[in-house]
Amino acid sequence: MKKNVLIIGAGGVAQVVAHKCAQNNDILGDIHIASRTKAKVEKIIASVHEKKAMKQPGIFEGHALDALDIEATKDLIRKTNSQIVINVGTAFLNMSVLRACMDTGVAYIDTAIHEEPGKICETPPWYGNYEWKRAAECEEKGITAILGAGFDPGVVNAYARLAKDEYLDKVTDVDIVDINAGSHGKYFATNFDPEINFREFTGVVYSWQNNQWNVNKMFEIGKDYDLPVVGTRRAYLCGHDEVHSLAKNMDGADVRFWMGFGDHYINVFTVLKSLGLLSEQPVKTAEGLEVVPLKVVKAVLPDPASLAPGYEGKTCIGDYVKGLKDGKERTVFIYNVADHKEAYEEVGSQGISYTAGVPPVAAAILVATGEWDAKKMVNVEELPPKPFINVLNRIGLQTCIRDENGDRELSF
Amino acid sequence: MKKNVLIIGAGGVAQVVAHKCAQNNDILGDIHIASRTKAKVEKIIASVHEKKAMKQPGIFEGHALDALDIEATKDLIRKTNSQIVINVGTAFLNMSVLRACMDTGVAYIDTAIHEEPGKICETPPWYGNYEWKRAAECEEKGITAILGAGFDPGVVNAYARLAKDEYLDKVTDVDIVDINAGSHGKYFATNFDPEINFREFTGVVYSWQNNQWNVNKMFEIGKDYDLPVVGTRRAYLCGHDEVHSLAKNMDGADVRFWMGFGDHYINVFTVLKSLGLLSEQPVKTAEGLEVVPLKVVKAVLPDPASLAPGYEGKTCIGDYVKGLKDGKERTVFIYNVADHKEAYEEVGSQGISYTAGVPPVAAAILVATGEWDAKKMVNVEELPPKPFINVLNRIGLQTCIRDENGDRELSF
Repeated sequence: MKKNVLIIGAGGVAQVVAHKCAQNNDILGDIHIASRTKAKVEKIIASVHEKKAMKQPGIFEGHALDALDIEATKDLIRKTNSQIVINVGTAFLNMSVLRACMDTGVAYIDTAIHEEPGKICETPPWYGNYEWKRAAECEEKGITAILGAGFDPGVVNAYARLAKDEYLDKVTDVDIVDINAGSHGKYFATNFDPEINFREFTGVVYSWQNNQWNVNKMFEIGKDYDLPVVGTRRAYLCGHDEVHSLAKNMDGADVRFWMGFGDHYINVFTVLKSLGLLSEQPVKTAEGLEVVPLKVVKAVLPDPASLAPGYEGKTCIGDYVKGLKDGKERTVFIYNVADHKEAYEEVGSQGISYTAGVPPVAAAILVATGEWDAKKMVNVEELPPKPFINVLNRIGLQTCIRDENGDRELSF
Repeated sequence: MKKNVLIIGAGGVAQVVAHKCAQNNDILGDIHIASRTKAKVEKIIASVHEKKAMKQPGIFEGHALDALDIEATKDLIRKTNSQIVINVGTAFLNMSVLRACMDTGVAYIDTAIHEEPGKICETPPWYGNYEWKRAAECEEKGITAILGAGFDPGVVNAYARLAKDEYLDKVTDVDIVDINAGSHGKYFATNFDPEINFREFTGVVYSWQNNQWNVNKMFEIGKDYDLPVVGTRRAYLCGHDEVHSLAKNMDGADVRFWMGFGDHYINVFTVLKSLGLLSEQPVKTAEGLEVVPLKVVKAVLPDPASLAPGYEGKTCIGDYVKGLKDGKERTVFIYNVADHKEAYEEVGSQGISYTAGVPPVAAAILVATGEWDAKKMVNVEELPPKPFINVLNRIGLQTCIRDENGDRELSF
């Protein structure tokens, strides 16, 4: 049984991960958290103690770490005797942290695909460009590496697998829908790191349809979804990590990702993108200073963590999975609804951070209990979904289903 | 008789000034042009020769100069034996170039108010913060310094004075209206240096009404103007240099400045301003780089000079001057209409640069002939307007009037 967790990162998601690890430290053992800025981890630890999140007395320590430095990361893993690393730092760190885990023989969990600073929207499948190149070595060494174990990617991958296992004989379409019906009250803000958020949408949109990669432009295809709790919302076909593994693992079903956007977001995004201000490529000012415009946009936008106190409303994220059951067409919608204010009251973060931060802790719990200790590199849909959904139900994210029999909670 | 001109700057306006000086080098003598970047002045000189702009054989030389370096500027004035300096460099240079002129005893002409990089929209009257503090010294030394001798400020100041002298017994209202009805075909661009352009509109709006400074927000007050040639256009009350001198020199009349903006400009401006991207104050990126957002916006926007080849349509800039004549209320509209394409064909710049660049050359000609060699610091409305209008008519900007007798050209 693996125990002792090292959390990497100190943003809004890391805050949730920290609280949830503390709340489950009877299973997870010692908790360590590391980030470039020590003050940020100290703040998170203070919040954990303030909320009395530790289930039982135990270790919760903070460390300064540049996680691009593989040797330093390995030293910290060894020094803390960590056996599970939850990487919720910036997406630029994945391959460095994964290498440190592979070299020290510990389990690796992340929530988003690896990215290189100077590149966006690389050739699909995205996992093939970085993570999957380490799959054979992970299997050979018996390293558990769970990729994309946030909500989306993550829980939505488990929902697709669940629909395939339980509700359909054959899956033809997986449409993942992510709606944030909450309001932060600011003129404009992104719900997680603006740099990563905008990088998701400045390239082309890849979807998997008719067994091939399909290319669209951002905001080219919109669709109204009538959803539980949040009502009818307009969502747009977007590129997203999970499409790139489900394309391989859903037996040829079409896989599309839809995200809800209001007209105001689209207007601001369109202005910034059209002007070139979302570019990840440096420009030179008249004074000769080289600067990446996107990093300046990030600098002027509100820190996503700062949105939490005033955030109100709910999120609804789930999978419309369509296919055949007993020879007839059937669609199920498996989903979760989260509440921004409840999330803030419990762990001091808003709902988007909450939905992203709870699942990797559920995954860590399942690695600790052995149920998900795969001893190889996997995407979430390659693991049994029911224990995951059960842990999520228990630790803060309730799974529901809507089908011909109505809406109801799911557990196993 | 003063002669020999040193042009400072190498942007779109400097290009026009260079061509117009060349076209009038029988009056103006040797022409020199200096800018930080030597390559830019060489390009302008090449354009002057390509268009065969030199009226008679003569000197037209380029120089590299950091015009913030007062001693270097003095050296260049002396070395070139210049007697008139036309400063059309960035607005941050004014006080340095003025000082160099005062120390060398030559005439100074500029087209926009002095600005300090870290400040916007200072206390009115703006001229009182910098330029007018040198007025006594100019008068004592007999230095001719003509402030704001572009179109607006500049020609519009002369129009206000002309209306007061010729068409009204008492002026009650001066409404300056600046409409660019042209199209550059880009998603978004500013017609002159984006940094200076945006700085005009990110502060509050000062107007002079009821003998006091009145404060509004940008885009708070809009009004449709039905204008010659360009038709009905929506203009907004804005802050602008000329309000700050006319407030003093129009015997207590209200002075307002209106600029035309399309909805698209307003939307882009509003997004950028609301996000903080038009700020002149530095921010720090996550990587610790200090950068002024406005300078990054400038870096991603098209170079205003690059707009010229495809620019089409016309500008209309003028003064609605209202008051009493023979005991009855009367309004005259004195204006110019310029054409982007004609400007480009003649001097290689678009119409906005053309309207800004022709007037300081007209002023230089009048300094050279002695008619405007004031031997003190003046704003344009303090000089006789008729010779100015006559020279402008001759060198490319025709003045017209619209009143109860219809539209017609004006000359004296």
